[in-house]
Amino acid sequence: MQRGNKRMGGQTVKLDNPPKIIAAHSIVGPKEGEGPLSKYFDEILDDDTLGKKSFEKAESQMMFTAISQALKKANLKEADIDYLFSGDLLNQIISSSFAAREFSIPFFGLYGACSTMSESLSLASIIMDGGFANHVVATTSSHFSSAERQFRFPLEYGSQRAQTAQWTVTGSGAVVLGHEGNFPEVTYVTTGIVKDYGQKDANNMGAAMAPAAADTIVSHFKDTGRKPEDYDIIATGDLGVIGKALTDKLIQEFGYDISKQHIDCGEIIFDNENQNTQSGGSGCGCSAVVFTGYLYKRLMKKEIKKILLVSTGALMSTTSSLQGETIPGIAHAVAIEMN
Amino acid sequence: MQRGNKRMGGQTVKLDNPPKIIAAHSIVGPKEGEGPLSKYFDEILDDDTLGKKSFEKAESQMMFTAISQALKKANLKEADIDYLFSGDLLNQIISSSFAAREFSIPFFGLYGACSTMSESLSLASIIMDGGFANHVVATTSSHFSSAERQFRFPLEYGSQRAQTAQWTVTGSGAVVLGHEGNFPEVTYVTTGIVKDYGQKDANNMGAAMAPAAADTIVSHFKDTGRKPEDYDIIATGDLGVIGKALTDKLIQEFGYDISKQHIDCGEIIFDNENQNTQSGGSGCGCSAVVFTGYLYKRLMKKEIKKILLVSTGALMSTTSSLQGETIPGIAHAVAIEMN
Repeated sequence: MQRGNKRMGGQTVKLDNPPKIIAAHSIVGPKEGEGPLSKYFDEILDDDTLGKKSFEKAESQMMFTAISQALKKANLKEADIDYLFSGDLLNQIISSSFAAREFSIPFFGLYGACSTMSESLSLASIIMDGGFANHVVATTSSHFSSAERQFRFPLEYGSQRAQTAQWTVTGSGAVVLGHEGNFPEVTYVTTGIVKDYGQKDANNMGAAMAPAAADTIVSHFKDTGRKPEDYDIIATGDLGVIGKALTDKLIQEFGYDISKQHIDCGEIIFDNENQNTQSGGSGCGCSAVVFTGYLYKRLMKKEIKKILLVSTGALMSTTSSLQGETIPGIAHAVAIEMN
Repeated sequence: MQRGNKRMGGQTVKLDNPPKIIAAHSIVGPKEGEGPLSKYFDEILDDDTLGKKSFEKAESQMMFTAISQALKKANLKEADIDYLFSGDLLNQIISSSFAAREFSIPFFGLYGACSTMSESLSLASIIMDGGFANHVVATTSSHFSSAERQFRFPLEYGSQRAQTAQWTVTGSGAVVLGHEGNFPEVTYVTTGIVKDYGQKDANNMGAAMAPAAADTIVSHFKDTGRKPEDYDIIATGDLGVIGKALTDKLIQEFGYDISKQHIDCGEIIFDNENQNTQSGGSGCGCSAVVFTGYLYKRLMKKEIKKILLVSTGALMSTTSSLQGETIPGIAHAVAIEMN
């Protein structure tokens, strides 16, 4: 085989044996279930503790459920799955590790903050395309209450939220990749470079992630020769209202106008005005459930045929913020197409 | 291409276009530099703060240095590198993200606790072998002081350490993979499954990781048909003295005796008796510097020709431990061979 022959140059690889997303499952909390995308989610929880004694255990259980249900839909058993790719926001990705513990599947743990859905999908697709696997699961999760406790304040404090703040989505999405059948295919993977424009405000992560989102999307166009109008939807992860507008503006400077195709998973998951979610949703689970719920179902119905999923992550920790560090961002893009 | 044709069955893939480890760099703290492997390390720090204001910033700087020096040795620039795979122990892997921020290289963030060196090497090798890249960097780091503060107690408490406890290695190792030249090759990748035998003692992580190490090593033998004597060295990550003995015992139950080939990076990096390191070294950096320092140099000199590197990770967090969870373990194996 020719070396590096699948590279388009830049940050993009083309998948010659594009893996198919043969099943997807989305599970969300009660608040997400009351939002505008309600009818698209496979499972809406009445109780976001799932009967567990902690929110961390609840989050892990949610991911376990998403994986289990996705396998069921694909009519596969865990023994049929060659790899599980997963990550989440919690310290040492315990939601993922404790969910993975329940499956006898070779496991690669990831951390990409809220970019994890497209990170896991990127690596899962690459490993499938390269002939290393027949079936792979990619997943991620987040939980409002475990994230608030870890990154901000315990809920009991009742802290007031900034207008630019985002609301961590309670949810998990899982996909199963395979080679057969008429399903949406992953055709290109554009991997993000860490970008840091010196933003320090942890209550305005959309602004921190916008340069990374813009960079990855522009690179995708340059590497592939594609244009915004080649896609029905370009869905960024969780830039929120403010980050989304900023991203469009940054991309315009490179001569591309994505405003017609651009939706942001963080912006559309809640009715931000009536649900008191400020600038929109965030968290690994945000793009995960918007993709596995809303976008996947529309692809399957052929209402849309070509999308670019660009989950975005803010790569900070409470320690880095307390030490005065700025917030680096990253965004990974995967092109998904239905024939 | 035939689907999944590179799978050996089980947890292993065979690399038909084995990537070569064309450069490696190891950087360690003063204590590691006083240990038995001293002469093998490329760089020994006088000051483990590297002149930075926090141990977290120091750790990130250490990784930055390891990557920079590995690139220099490979005579490559960052623009020549297609992907960077990295992870570390700190919450939200800030050592990796902040090191990655300094390079314009597509970045995949990983979390595998102390298994991260072989996790990053596994994914880097797979992406090379599949034709997706010409050069890839895989790296990880750990720092005694940042890890103590995060996982145990601030150093100022002067807490007494348990006899089974391990000492987090201050160090970072980075490798550059390429396709050309006479260098050690990555030939097989055996990916770990999360194993949890109900161990709860965070001061005895070797015991928590032993079942995972045993499972991955036995799977590697079963999948490939290889035997312990096919390797000059089987190097586990950081099981320490106690975990290593336990692993040998577990593997014997499957009919394999690895005691002649088995070394443990955690056991050999310190003179445990005289350096007061109890059961040995640990941390992502442990197997990273033992591999990039000691093992890589011996491979290059052809003193050894075939090794199996099996970094091992304990997938817990302080939150999971406080919530009464047991400690799941994982181990990833890569076969590395010099012609």
